[in-house]
Amino acid sequence: MNTTDEHYMRLALKLARRGLGRTSPNPMVGAVIVKDGRIIAQGYHKAFGADHAEVAALKKAKEDVAGATLYVSLEPCRHHGKTPPCTDAIIGAKIGRVVIGMLDPDPRMRGESMKLLREKGIKTADGVLDDEARDLNEKYVKHRATGIPYVTLKWAQTLDGRIAAAGGSTTRVSSPPSLKLAHKLRATHDAILVGINTVLKDDPQLTTRLVKGRNPLRVVLDSRLRTPLDARVLKDRDKAGTLVVTTPRAPARKLAALKKMDVEVLAVPPDKDDRIDLKKLLKALGARDVSSLLVEGGGEVLASFLRLGLGDKLVVIISPKILGKGTDSVSDLNITDLARAYKLTFDKVYRSGEDIVVEGKV
Amino acid sequence: MNTTDEHYMRLALKLARRGLGRTSPNPMVGAVIVKDGRIIAQGYHKAFGADHAEVAALKKAKEDVAGATLYVSLEPCRHHGKTPPCTDAIIGAKIGRVVIGMLDPDPRMRGESMKLLREKGIKTADGVLDDEARDLNEKYVKHRATGIPYVTLKWAQTLDGRIAAAGGSTTRVSSPPSLKLAHKLRATHDAILVGINTVLKDDPQLTTRLVKGRNPLRVVLDSRLRTPLDARVLKDRDKAGTLVVTTPRAPARKLAALKKMDVEVLAVPPDKDDRIDLKKLLKALGARDVSSLLVEGGGEVLASFLRLGLGDKLVVIISPKILGKGTDSVSDLNITDLARAYKLTFDKVYRSGEDIVVEGKV
Repeated sequence: MNTTDEHYMRLALKLARRGLGRTSPNPMVGAVIVKDGRIIAQGYHKAFGADHAEVAALKKAKEDVAGATLYVSLEPCRHHGKTPPCTDAIIGAKIGRVVIGMLDPDPRMRGESMKLLREKGIKTADGVLDDEARDLNEKYVKHRATGIPYVTLKWAQTLDGRIAAAGGSTTRVSSPPSLKLAHKLRATHDAILVGINTVLKDDPQLTTRLVKGRNPLRVVLDSRLRTPLDARVLKDRDKAGTLVVTTPRAPARKLAALKKMDVEVLAVPPDKDDRIDLKKLLKALGARDVSSLLVEGGGEVLASFLRLGLGDKLVVIISPKILGKGTDSVSDLNITDLARAYKLTFDKVYRSGEDIVVEGKV
Repeated sequence: MNTTDEHYMRLALKLARRGLGRTSPNPMVGAVIVKDGRIIAQGYHKAFGADHAEVAALKKAKEDVAGATLYVSLEPCRHHGKTPPCTDAIIGAKIGRVVIGMLDPDPRMRGESMKLLREKGIKTADGVLDDEARDLNEKYVKHRATGIPYVTLKWAQTLDGRIAAAGGSTTRVSSPPSLKLAHKLRATHDAILVGINTVLKDDPQLTTRLVKGRNPLRVVLDSRLRTPLDARVLKDRDKAGTLVVTTPRAPARKLAALKKMDVEVLAVPPDKDDRIDLKKLLKALGARDVSSLLVEGGGEVLASFLRLGLGDKLVVIISPKILGKGTDSVSDLNITDLARAYKLTFDKVYRSGEDIVVEGKV
């Protein structure tokens, strides 16, 4: 590793970030081609289905790339997907050296492409700005490595930890800039999940209305199929998918009514407490190429994810209000000793309008 | 007002700040004497009982101050207190011009000194960096203007708003740097207040052990005199005063036992809910020259201060933990609609070790 390599890799990572919210289930990837100390082309993966970053950069080069160095933030693919393998294109273009940020965490990959390139006489280097490359694609990395989506737990609360007045709606706890932030979060996740209580109380649309970006798949946890047929989460399915998750014991009549409306219902076996088994649900979502899931509550659902250790990240919006008694942001976790509380790290703290946003890991 | 005046006033305010935690019930005041564009002396009020800032500066001058400009962050006094009136010293020294940051909010003052100086032919200017001068002495200003102490509500909670696991101790919610911060807060308040439940559960000392500084008067709200005779808050009274606040209906036996131990007990008439009337208590404390009060909880006491609108400032330490169910940081406020929640401003947000500290106004 040297500072020149890091310099170009930093640029590749910057390019990669331009694909934010559009590449999933693919990762964000950027590429830079350098010859004789000059950048002769650069590219990035613009969206799922579009050219991979390496190919985008190769196509842009206006001079011969033979012998040049290719910087790419993630190990190139060597399999046919929506596009032909990048390794073929690299070998065909007679690239002299390939430097990557991180190996592809996909169990079928993990260095296989680099091995192939070396066999073809191409010099390689990996792990340049590895941590940054991993951070950039933390959702992709988790999904590829484990088969289950990266889970972000998000809620908005008053300073004293309430999401609503007793029995009241959870809407409008946070300020307009934070609502926009919440929609931005939605746009960078493949799916969004709420519990049935949230649907019954707030009747949310769960779409990305306030910002540009993709609508995530809307997932409702509804073991007894209580989602009203006129719920807003069942509307606009041409723009945003909906998946109602229940158990095999869901009422047959309601199931039939939903199916008649063409609503997709997924039956997941219950856990020992007769609730939807969240681990099995995450596996099923992962298998459907949902690489990231935003859990928006309510308190019961958030507590369930925390209890099972299924949250990778927390985003908590703290509104400058005090409510006293009210609906808790996080329900009972069966903790009776402060020493056994869930420990977090506060990775980022910033302001959003009049609110404070805390991002952390569990 | 001109930039030169602001320049020297800024210096006077900076000098004033050096008295932090030592001047109460006096304000922090700084003074600068300028002649022919040169600073010829400066001073500040070092501690209660010591020279006032103006006199400290005049004493330090090594040349004739006749005709010089005196910058002082607060209107000079014109009454005999622990020291002779500053106006006499200013007039005697033949100062040519007096520029002040703010008028003294004391109802007996409010410009009276400035009027006197003008009558003596001295030029005056006031309101230079008035806001900064007010901020610096917000506790003094509130106390002098209203007769009741400036009240800071402080607590440490988990991210989800708990101060303890159900029934557990509230100690050690926050990290060591935040404990130090809490002691620093104590050192800048004249008194510290807790409810009897906190005494019974945590048996706190309520002293300023982790930092240099004065020990505040320790005030315990204890309507039924349940403070144990061996409670730590009753110990070390040579270093830190203790005041047990109760109602006239306190049990006579316990009252006698406390008096025998030489513990001061203050009986405050109860409010209509038969609790200690906090407004009357604040008036009594203000009359005792307590210009600032730090309320450290628990949740019931904090809720009472909030309900009565008696909190001037909030300092909340948020620890990177999630507890789920537990003891609430703020108890019931009788709010059933989010729109009626107490609105705050988040004036400052900063890190303290692994915690986040939020300072705001109610």
